[in-house]
Amino acid sequence: MTDETKQPAASHAGPSRSEFDFINELRQRVGPPASQSLIAGIGDDAAVVRGTAGKEIIITADLLVEDIDFRRTTTPPYLLGHKALAVSLSDIAAMGARPLWSLISIGVPDDIWQTDFVDRLYDGLFDLASRYGVQLIGGDTSRTPENIVIDSIVAGECAAGMSIKRAGARAGDQIFVTGSLGAAAAGFRLIERGAHLADQNLADEDSQKLDHVLLRQLRPEPRVGWGIVLGEEQLATAMIDLSDGLSSDLNRLCEASGVGARIDSSLLPIDQRVTELCGRRALDPLQLALHGGEDFELLFTVKPENVARLPRRVDGVEIKRIGEITGAPEVEVLEGARVWKLKPGGWKHF
Amino acid sequence: MTDETKQPAASHAGPSRSEFDFINELRQRVGPPASQSLIAGIGDDAAVVRGTAGKEIIITADLLVEDIDFRRTTTPPYLLGHKALAVSLSDIAAMGARPLWSLISIGVPDDIWQTDFVDRLYDGLFDLASRYGVQLIGGDTSRTPENIVIDSIVAGECAAGMSIKRAGARAGDQIFVTGSLGAAAAGFRLIERGAHLADQNLADEDSQKLDHVLLRQLRPEPRVGWGIVLGEEQLATAMIDLSDGLSSDLNRLCEASGVGARIDSSLLPIDQRVTELCGRRALDPLQLALHGGEDFELLFTVKPENVARLPRRVDGVEIKRIGEITGAPEVEVLEGARVWKLKPGGWKHF
Repeated sequence: MTDETKQPAASHAGPSRSEFDFINELRQRVGPPASQSLIAGIGDDAAVVRGTAGKEIIITADLLVEDIDFRRTTTPPYLLGHKALAVSLSDIAAMGARPLWSLISIGVPDDIWQTDFVDRLYDGLFDLASRYGVQLIGGDTSRTPENIVIDSIVAGECAAGMSIKRAGARAGDQIFVTGSLGAAAAGFRLIERGAHLADQNLADEDSQKLDHVLLRQLRPEPRVGWGIVLGEEQLATAMIDLSDGLSSDLNRLCEASGVGARIDSSLLPIDQRVTELCGRRALDPLQLALHGGEDFELLFTVKPENVARLPRRVDGVEIKRIGEITGAPEVEVLEGARVWKLKPGGWKHF
Repeated sequence: MTDETKQPAASHAGPSRSEFDFINELRQRVGPPASQSLIAGIGDDAAVVRGTAGKEIIITADLLVEDIDFRRTTTPPYLLGHKALAVSLSDIAAMGARPLWSLISIGVPDDIWQTDFVDRLYDGLFDLASRYGVQLIGGDTSRTPENIVIDSIVAGECAAGMSIKRAGARAGDQIFVTGSLGAAAAGFRLIERGAHLADQNLADEDSQKLDHVLLRQLRPEPRVGWGIVLGEEQLATAMIDLSDGLSSDLNRLCEASGVGARIDSSLLPIDQRVTELCGRRALDPLQLALHGGEDFELLFTVKPENVARLPRRVDGVEIKRIGEITGAPEVEVLEGARVWKLKPGGWKHF
């Protein structure tokens, strides 16, 4: 979610490992795809299984937990429903696939069940689902002692062999991102400091800027259209969505591809309203753009000869070239005349 | 889980509705399957989508929440992993399908992450998955403030048009259950009273009986083999798994099919060890068999002319005829000379 990396306490009984170490161990344990139907398993934005003739099914799950991934007091239920589905749609987009159906598992405490919270949450889910023709086909409902939990499962499809993995980037490929960076993390910090959405009828220009930033955190827009286009046109060699932060997610893509990268900080499409709001609030827009998570933009790589074939915008969203894949394993940032190593800095659960 | 039906407190803001009312509302809101790929959505054991040529994909999700569905102190992590997968495999079996792959989303608090709990949980998951050739392809890992949550998603497949719904039972069909009834609910009650698994090396005959009953609660065996056979041979007209209790699940099957049923209490395959243990412990075996949940046996209906074609046992598990589908909407129990109405009594989350 953000860049407050949690350092686990020293362990006595078990390994003091990160979530990513754990996923790597799990992947090794599962081994390479053995089943006839499985094409790619743990370790990408989503899993891939064989679908109807000539198709692949792409499937992903995202667990949102109250007080870890959101707060009940600052997240209207409609927006929570939207976000739960959006994060999974973003994973499907990052595979270059078209989303088709969803299962939602939800656990809520009894006091929440007695209100219209769950109805409003489903309003948000349904509204976003219908925008992309995604059908809700199932899930589970459970009671919890205290915290709300939502597991959002989305499946999509693409032509067989056409899903875009993290591992396809090669030296010389150009690095692009959709939309803009940093606003979701800025919104998170401002919400933690007490900011909330303005009454739209009374909103002045400053409130509208603030709302924009808060909504980038509360109502992320998955880049579904871009995912479909990049997959269908086979324009991206590798892709990942920016959920944990550019620094983490670019490092992850490079590691999977066995390459390095150099990005130019002056090219980063930092959200303009973040820049405008941050000065007064002692926040650093570049840090937010590099390490802040949850922008849910797509980060993808394109062969130089294909750059001219890229559409300018899809669904009104533009893209920006931010750097280039290199042969060296380092992921670097060019900032003015200085070059420094970009270490993964975004959100970790453990 | 069991028959302690939770009565929601009188509501002020929202509707005081049950989980099942909510699922019905959701189903109406979703409407009939509209997408080309969706065959059956909310309201059965699992959802059905179009698969590879001539196949259907069956998919289900089950959310297990600590202190609602299990207790950390009485559930060894290995068995928790087994159970999380088993409940979803049971749903796939209840559709007459063969399980293929699984996604597991897991949320754990930091203190649990620091131990080997999650590894042992995955040991249980992997061991059960490999018994049925199910491949773990993905999922999500999250931190929670306090409680463990597991969402277990399993997909399977069957020949197109061959999945067995709840809605196919007709008057005259014979009602069968696999295995035996009542032990999981007895196990739950005994665990709540402090019983625990014996040291196998020291176990006398009585401890072995107790262990059997406790393990029916802690380590349910999904009837995967029976599900596949009944689906492939098209021997069942309707099927459901016994997760909430025979009384609830039979009523649900009858409601979906627009029929009634009469079962004969003397035919119920009550677990013999339950009968032996219950006398001393003031538990009623018939009540446990009728209303106790989590046996994860299959309840299915068969046309009279097909009864002779049923195998005697699959994977060592026998079946038992317990009654007959009727045209009347009532679900009744014949107990000696008395006939009484069987109301849904099993577990409800809300």
